[in-house]
Amino acid sequence: MKNRQPVYYGDYLQLKKILEAQATESEKYGKAAHDETLFIIIHQTYELWFKQIIHELRSCLELFSHAVVNSNDLCTIFQRLNRVTEIQKILVDQIKVMETMTTLDFMEFRDFLTPASGFQSLQFRLIEAMLGIKPQHRMEMEKQFFMSRMSAEDLGQLKKAEEAMSLFELVEKWLERMPFSQFEDYDFWKEYTQAVSKMLQSDRTIIESNSTLNPLMREVELKQFKATEETFKTLMSESTYKEKQQSGELRINHKAMLSAVFIYLYRDYPALQMPYQILNKLVEIDENFTTWRYRHAQMVHRILGTKIGTGGSSGHEYLKSTTERNKAFIDFFNLPTFLIPKSLTPKLPKNVISQLDFVYDRSQP
Amino acid sequence: MKNRQPVYYGDYLQLKKILEAQATESEKYGKAAHDETLFIIIHQTYELWFKQIIHELRSCLELFSHAVVNSNDLCTIFQRLNRVTEIQKILVDQIKVMETMTTLDFMEFRDFLTPASGFQSLQFRLIEAMLGIKPQHRMEMEKQFFMSRMSAEDLGQLKKAEEAMSLFELVEKWLERMPFSQFEDYDFWKEYTQAVSKMLQSDRTIIESNSTLNPLMREVELKQFKATEETFKTLMSESTYKEKQQSGELRINHKAMLSAVFIYLYRDYPALQMPYQILNKLVEIDENFTTWRYRHAQMVHRILGTKIGTGGSSGHEYLKSTTERNKAFIDFFNLPTFLIPKSLTPKLPKNVISQLDFVYDRSQP
Amino acid sequence: MKNRQPVYYGDYLQLKKILEAQATESEKYGKAAHDETLFIIIHQTYELWFKQIIHELRSCLELFSHAVVNSNDLCTIFQRLNRVTEIQKILVDQIKVMETMTTLDFMEFRDFLTPASGFQSLQFRLIEAMLGIKPQHRMEMEKQFFMSRMSAEDLGQLKKAEEAMSLFELVEKWLERMPFSQFEDYDFWKEYTQAVSKMLQSDRTIIESNSTLNPLMREVELKQFKATEETFKTLMSESTYKEKQQSGELRINHKAMLSAVFIYLYRDYPALQMPYQILNKLVEIDENFTTWRYRHAQMVHRILGTKIGTGGSSGHEYLKSTTERNKAFIDFFNLPTFLIPKSLTPKLPKNVISQLDFVYDRSQP
Amino acid sequence: MKNRQPVYYGDYLQLKKILEAQATESEKYGKAAHDETLFIIIHQTYELWFKQIIHELRSCLELFSHAVVNSNDLCTIFQRLNRVTEIQKILVDQIKVMETMTTLDFMEFRDFLTPASGFQSLQFRLIEAMLGIKPQHRMEMEKQFFMSRMSAEDLGQLKKAEEAMSLFELVEKWLERMPFSQFEDYDFWKEYTQAVSKMLQSDRTIIESNSTLNPLMREVELKQFKATEETFKTLMSESTYKEKQQSGELRINHKAMLSAVFIYLYRDYPALQMPYQILNKLVEIDENFTTWRYRHAQMVHRILGTKIGTGGSSGHEYLKSTTERNKAFIDFFNLPTFLIPKSLTPKLPKNVISQLDFVYDRSQP
Repeated sequence: MKNRQPVYYGDYLQLKKILEAQATESEKYGKAAHDETLFIIIHQTYELWFKQIIHELRSCLELFSHAVVNSNDLCTIFQRLNRVTEIQKILVDQIKVMETMTTLDFMEFRDFLTPASGFQSLQFRLIEAMLGIKPQHRMEMEKQFFMSRMSAEDLGQLKKAEEAMSLFELVEKWLERMPFSQFEDYDFWKEYTQAVSKMLQSDRTIIESNSTLNPLMREVELKQFKATEETFKTLMSESTYKEKQQSGELRINHKAMLSAVFIYLYRDYPALQMPYQILNKLVEIDENFTTWRYRHAQMVHRILGTKIGTGGSSGHEYLKSTTERNKAFIDFFNLPTFLIPKSLTPKLPKNVISQLDFVYDRSQP
Repeated sequence: MKNRQPVYYGDYLQLKKILEAQATESEKYGKAAHDETLFIIIHQTYELWFKQIIHELRSCLELFSHAVVNSNDLCTIFQRLNRVTEIQKILVDQIKVMETMTTLDFMEFRDFLTPASGFQSLQFRLIEAMLGIKPQHRMEMEKQFFMSRMSAEDLGQLKKAEEAMSLFELVEKWLERMPFSQFEDYDFWKEYTQAVSKMLQSDRTIIESNSTLNPLMREVELKQFKATEETFKTLMSESTYKEKQQSGELRINHKAMLSAVFIYLYRDYPALQMPYQILNKLVEIDENFTTWRYRHAQMVHRILGTKIGTGGSSGHEYLKSTTERNKAFIDFFNLPTFLIPKSLTPKLPKNVISQLDFVYDRSQP
Repeated sequence: MKNRQPVYYGDYLQLKKILEAQATESEKYGKAAHDETLFIIIHQTYELWFKQIIHELRSCLELFSHAVVNSNDLCTIFQRLNRVTEIQKILVDQIKVMETMTTLDFMEFRDFLTPASGFQSLQFRLIEAMLGIKPQHRMEMEKQFFMSRMSAEDLGQLKKAEEAMSLFELVEKWLERMPFSQFEDYDFWKEYTQAVSKMLQSDRTIIESNSTLNPLMREVELKQFKATEETFKTLMSESTYKEKQQSGELRINHKAMLSAVFIYLYRDYPALQMPYQILNKLVEIDENFTTWRYRHAQMVHRILGTKIGTGGSSGHEYLKSTTERNKAFIDFFNLPTFLIPKSLTPKLPKNVISQLDFVYDRSQP
Repeated sequence: MKNRQPVYYGDYLQLKKILEAQATESEKYGKAAHDETLFIIIHQTYELWFKQIIHELRSCLELFSHAVVNSNDLCTIFQRLNRVTEIQKILVDQIKVMETMTTLDFMEFRDFLTPASGFQSLQFRLIEAMLGIKPQHRMEMEKQFFMSRMSAEDLGQLKKAEEAMSLFELVEKWLERMPFSQFEDYDFWKEYTQAVSKMLQSDRTIIESNSTLNPLMREVELKQFKATEETFKTLMSESTYKEKQQSGELRINHKAMLSAVFIYLYRDYPALQMPYQILNKLVEIDENFTTWRYRHAQMVHRILGTKIGTGGSSGHEYLKSTTERNKAFIDFFNLPTFLIPKSLTPKLPKNVISQLDFVYDRSQP
């Protein structure tokens, strides 16, 4: 620490730059609209948080790209993904600050901002790409919306990010390398299939014997039941699985999926706790962006109704089209279907358990 | 206060009854499933809160049914509706407690509960009816879902509530009685229409001159713009409005709607602050139930995936069908479209203002 | 809007400046510590939000400094104070993001930052000064903590803000100008005093006849009761009140206090709703900063325990000393004591009511 | 599942009992006070949640009382403690519902409830006792407050709970049995002591060379620094530690404390993740009750100021006396002080690591 220069708060945070970067457009053409300052500052905080999310995702990509991801790195990855979700909560909560702006306040400066638009945020697209959203996952309408507005330079940067390995792909490879899709001398998946059969048979009986269902309702329930049955069949048949993967219904490959199911089923063993928590966090990241898009659309509706926003765009069609989509880890979101009652879950043989478990007490033999 | 009997905490709250009303089904058939207690208690708290919501709504119905609703009653109504929204937040937050239950925990007792189902909650249906949901507003599928499961007695009670005056109807009448749809010697709505025209013309210019829109995007925006233009036309034409009302697109009548628009536009005047806040609260109540339904569906998905729940019902189809529907006050939700920039909003004549405003300072001439 | 230059998102938000203002100190002396980026960005967002709060407070100061504050301005003031409270919630919530940083992560770069410290934030001190915290309200220890660390230039700016009229002083004057401390031909405060007497007599009887209190507990309750009685006496005696004001126990002057009590008692009348909500918001702003200081102290404890932070300061003593202090509007915080049961609250005469009330329904005679 | 009786929602939840257990006192003496129903229902939900917390704690006590706590049980314990914290958040959030009640609303029925008081809640005291609060940890004033009000029968039940093994004692024993306070042929604690010395020396230099500290501030910082130094010395000296334990400054025994410090330092190893998370959860449970007490006191102040509440008790003195106390796991709350920078943390020898770690990738040698 010798010869270190002293550091002062304001210099360290470069506050001169940061706090002088709010120039309202309204002031250029007359009187500054009071609320335009809020509009600028809130978007600047969004972009600062996007930068932080990118910083975290980049380090996770790096750690996951190691040939072997060790247990300490897993913890680090989890902590950083967890930080992403905490930041996302702030992104969502900040919408309430935006909502303190009324239509009347906003309309005072809206027209000065054309054609600026949130669609021009490069960093947000980079985050989507780093998570695993590729051009083929986006709806045509969505692409039109932001691609027409972004600069050539920004589009170039986005393309590069889309071509690089995403978190989705690295997680898929990591799961694939795990030893759970097939065990040496233990046919786990056969036992699992039998357990599933028992559960489904019981479920069918419950539906059929439910006296409070009228015929129409019973039909509805049975249809849903059959769809669930299909879902299990797909999981257990490599070929059916691949078909659904090719049609785009499923994204992750079969081997990785089996590992994920195994991790979800036996997450209570110490060795699987962290992998489970990581998969769960990835689902949460997807869901938080969904919530953010939904709340964002609601906020726009509250301020504008169906009138146009900045950049001459209502954004309705766009926001509606992406709210429930753009989930990189949708396959994990659907994993709970594969969980079965504890009493039916196969008991693992001792040699498998010994690789997953710990003994904590020194008093134990 | 003389001759009053002393009251003790436990007796007053009837804790003997309340705390001994948790009999697990699982225990009857073997070992009590640990998590079934949570399942019972959380649903009991839900039903207690539903009772409280009904208590508040009933008093609002009573107050709104007076020939003249005075300003003190308006305050009381607002406070009670506000309490409903605070309770709704608890209803939503409690879902996180439910989510601490894993699939494995839940499946240990699920099958014992057939055919019990949340669809059998009478109180929740009564709340919907008191707000203003009538049978004709429900989707067929939804009705099938809960009507097939409810007892004849409960269905009878629900029918009675649906036939009575709802909050929606009483609010409509209250708005209708207000003097804002037409003023004696001031043609407010003509001025408003002119202001809207100016705004729309400017919006159209912005869309047409936005250089970052490609032809497809411009078309999308113009289509949306025209829809907004139609919305305004409908508001200003009594006959078109009535057609949309008959088709079910709009619920509230024309006169009441004009009052509501006026209140939204001039909410800053003391006389309109409370009416505005009440309309806003009603929208919030609708939205909170939407959030609750959505989070409820998510929670079920996290625990079960697509497997069936209690009562042999997956509920997916139901939950999907109602999440964004069942809003009694959807017309107010769409009001922000009618708000226009402050600079364009008509200045009210002095005699109108004097009825809406106050002078606070004694020092004033 | 003619001749307006087009505006683009990135330029408008000055993202080049904003997103390149994160230079880690750790990198200068070796390898960049991953978490230092978070440390910089979170503090930058804090300072951006402080700027926004200052923007809102400045406009409220301006509006309150008018000779007559009209009802539309009151609404604007309320909305802007409300925005401050929404921003404060973000300030508090962001602490959770900071808490994703572990001791180990933080210690990797802490030593590089000496002597930078949050105590050097000028903007935060300006906010306190604008609300009404003057040097004489601060504890000696607190002043030592930040004054020793701030630059001469910043101290000069702070001094100027402390010498200017604060929100506290302007609100005091505004309340003073109101006609509620004395009515022309209606002795409100005499009636109020009688009502208070009745209530206090009843309270004393309840304490004395409570059979579940042992002698010690009864004594405790009676002591507290007498303190409450004193509080009322102080309110009703101008001379006693002034003594307490001089000793620093009370801050706001007597006339303003009486207006505030009247507003709290009759807040349901339309004319008093907005004044009440404003006073209430001011209390909330104080409380939110209290919560922020408390959560901040907790966060530091979780990361460091009692070890020193950046700038070689543990901050414990400081944080402890300010958490519950530094409330500009503490007098309003204590107002609820003066509220009495509805049944005892004096009925206002018609001519007073007519100045506070509205008639909404056109059908009324 | 054969011969099972069908179960219906209303019967299962015993809604007849639950929903008819709200008898207002005010109605007995005249007109029912509208808000008394809320007062009853909110307290009933509190007691239902207390029952659930007791259910969870009881099962954790049972699992921790096993001679060997295996890894699956640890997971179960964690999940149940986590559920307790989720319930606590509801307890805190519900205060906002209570706060929708104004002074005026509350005063309409307060006097009917004498001498009922929240101090008479047996279940809340049982929870404190199960966590580890023994009579000797309570302040005299606090005991007076609730003991004078509880019935002999309830006091008897509480005494039994206080005499039984608490979670605190079982966790202490569990930590004591762990092998981390002393390793066979590795002197971990010597290495740790050396690392601490290095860190403290560096901290002292930073304080001494900080040019922004004036002499008074430097003295304050050095005093705090010496206290921290003492804290470390106490940890490393069994005899000093025991003295502090006897004086009541520390509760947990030395061996258990060393295990806890080790777990906090190396929590990233898979074997220590769950133990760390459990200790952390216990601290969170303490903190949540602290928050609840604090928010409860604030709410009472907002509604009553310093006036008496139900049962003729202001409760101020009580609430103030317990807010920051009554933490069973205060020793873990203070653990962060013992964490040191990663670069200084001793590298564990291979044979120790091998007991704590996993290898996840099958591709690894």
